[in-house]
Amino acid sequence: MTRFSQSVSALRSSAIRDLMSLATRPDMISFAGGMPDNELFPIHEVQEIVDNLSVKEQQVAMQYGPTTGYPPLLEALGEWLRKKGFPMDTNKLIITTGSLQAINIWAKMFIDPGDVVLTENPAFIGALSAFGSYMPTIHGINMDGHGILIEPLKEALKLDPKFLYITPTFHNPAGLTYSPERRRELLDVMNATEVPILEDDAYGELWFDEEDKQHIVPLKVQSEKEQQICYTGSFSKIFGPGMRLGWMLVGEEFYRKAELCKQCIDACSPTFTQVLAHRFLVSGQLDSYVASVRSIYHKRCEYMVDAIKRYFPSEASFVEPKGGFYIWVKLPDGIDEMELLKEVIAEGAVFVVGSTFDPQGASNGYIRVSYCNTAEDKIEKGIKIIGDVMKKMMK
Amino acid sequence: MTRFSQSVSALRSSAIRDLMSLATRPDMISFAGGMPDNELFPIHEVQEIVDNLSVKEQQVAMQYGPTTGYPPLLEALGEWLRKKGFPMDTNKLIITTGSLQAINIWAKMFIDPGDVVLTENPAFIGALSAFGSYMPTIHGINMDGHGILIEPLKEALKLDPKFLYITPTFHNPAGLTYSPERRRELLDVMNATEVPILEDDAYGELWFDEEDKQHIVPLKVQSEKEQQICYTGSFSKIFGPGMRLGWMLVGEEFYRKAELCKQCIDACSPTFTQVLAHRFLVSGQLDSYVASVRSIYHKRCEYMVDAIKRYFPSEASFVEPKGGFYIWVKLPDGIDEMELLKEVIAEGAVFVVGSTFDPQGASNGYIRVSYCNTAEDKIEKGIKIIGDVMKKMMK
Repeated sequence: MTRFSQSVSALRSSAIRDLMSLATRPDMISFAGGMPDNELFPIHEVQEIVDNLSVKEQQVAMQYGPTTGYPPLLEALGEWLRKKGFPMDTNKLIITTGSLQAINIWAKMFIDPGDVVLTENPAFIGALSAFGSYMPTIHGINMDGHGILIEPLKEALKLDPKFLYITPTFHNPAGLTYSPERRRELLDVMNATEVPILEDDAYGELWFDEEDKQHIVPLKVQSEKEQQICYTGSFSKIFGPGMRLGWMLVGEEFYRKAELCKQCIDACSPTFTQVLAHRFLVSGQLDSYVASVRSIYHKRCEYMVDAIKRYFPSEASFVEPKGGFYIWVKLPDGIDEMELLKEVIAEGAVFVVGSTFDPQGASNGYIRVSYCNTAEDKIEKGIKIIGDVMKKMMK
Repeated sequence: MTRFSQSVSALRSSAIRDLMSLATRPDMISFAGGMPDNELFPIHEVQEIVDNLSVKEQQVAMQYGPTTGYPPLLEALGEWLRKKGFPMDTNKLIITTGSLQAINIWAKMFIDPGDVVLTENPAFIGALSAFGSYMPTIHGINMDGHGILIEPLKEALKLDPKFLYITPTFHNPAGLTYSPERRRELLDVMNATEVPILEDDAYGELWFDEEDKQHIVPLKVQSEKEQQICYTGSFSKIFGPGMRLGWMLVGEEFYRKAELCKQCIDACSPTFTQVLAHRFLVSGQLDSYVASVRSIYHKRCEYMVDAIKRYFPSEASFVEPKGGFYIWVKLPDGIDEMELLKEVIAEGAVFVVGSTFDPQGASNGYIRVSYCNTAEDKIEKGIKIIGDVMKKMMK
């Protein structure tokens, strides 16, 4: 067994796992997941796509494909990104088996045991686990409502990190979106270094407001030194996670290394679902589908914000999301999040405790509630349960 | 960049790559690939399966699934394996993104830089690359027509290896199948140690003869110490590689580590294709499909064996395959395989040179010719090209 394997069980708090495993009652209201709602998937469109594949496409769909991706999908996705302003002439795309695989490939490219990597704190648990499996020291940098804090970032850069991992848009779990000013400050600091940036944009398409959208520009698009940035995206939230498709957009230097890494991870991503994603994208169905789910997630978010304002004690605070799946709630002082979780599960609802997203697994007085996968009526009921338990605990 | 990334370009011989890239003429006869023939895929069955999915199945197909696999597929595959004699009560299945991912997970579980791992020589290039990415010392053990050589294996076990990787059935590239006696000897030696075995059986279903099949028993089935063995299989040759589905069958101890490794590699394998594989398996279509392709591959193999006997110089030798995709030909003394490849490509055919499958990339005087993906008429034509060039070079 490797050192990683020997330590691997320590990666996950068994206390949390045990608690979550209680949350299996069929009537349980779950704000825990980060998956889209089953009811929202474009199943009819997919059926129609399959019915209209040519024989050639059907055969190709069942065959191995190039490691970097199914060429028609690479081309269509490249055009789609070009229209959004991405520097496609100086970068290359790799289709990955979910964007988590892109993160894993990146980790494999950069992390030797003991290396320092920088992340936000909190950060996406999948990325923390992927990095952790290569045995680095993960240094988390705190955020405020505008994004990562610049002074702590400057300090952390003195640790000679291998890269900085960030999710500037619709953050998981923090629900926040970096302000234009913070993006600029971040780029100014990073551009003065050679430290690569891994920009995770899994939720970027799920904005709620056309006006907000104008101010949300991916770092990869606006940086004067864009070769420093690996940009990852995902089909999970704009098509379906079961397709296991994501991508990474990188310059030539990183591209060749990433291709070789992917070659020995799974040879290629599923061609079958790449063929479907290609058709979904070029038909324009993807864009109209995303437009429709945006408004549904927006409505659910508004419901949840409204319910939190009504049912949570006023001492609980949060930043209102501009898109994505999550609200990150700071608990009133003195409420233990594990204790809260236990009592809320007993009452029939469930969420994720903040320590899950802390690079060191430390308790931080936050909880993450997702609105992505819960219908409106249940949102109100579940949030009331959490609020009531909080109020009881405060007495 | 990690030490692995810095060394990664050394993993692949650029000379071979450059040569192979010449082999792109549309009329080129290729014996190089290890993929099934596009024409043989069960595309109508897949279309029918998709058309008959319930709404629930369609939704589940697009959603994240459990890391270890789509439960109905795990159950059906478990039953299928149980009927073949596998010890299902003492082992657990994990669905992987191709069986290459199972090999990669295994490597991640066991290899710290500098560790020794044992493989056959030659060995599957995908496994060599996956292992290599974790920076071990790979020690290859030679084979004869009956399997791995026992005395060199005993010697190699003194190197304190982390595991032994083998493909006892329809070997890629060596085309051979371990004899019952060699399997027994191997197990006797290994059972006396605690060294885990990774048994790769990607081609196991592709036997040519009912009689032969009786003597081909996976080590995982016959070992008295089966917990020592991780058995991997694949849907690539019995359904389609584009589905990216394989599996690993392991005891509880390895199962938990493997699950955690997979969690940070891609979270789960494509649910969409798992739903299709489940239906294909439980309907009985998989078994009838495999029966049909078996006879086609058998016929192609016979054609190729016959053509080799007619067109290759008598000094070239090989073991006649009992199944699988490949013939491994020992070249007459004095023929340089790279030189041969170059001239054969110029004449319109292509194969893979033996050094590709050597753990150290050393030249070994062998070539691999695949019959899986070439129709009968082209087999004769292509083999004649190779034979003629050989004869010319011998003059």
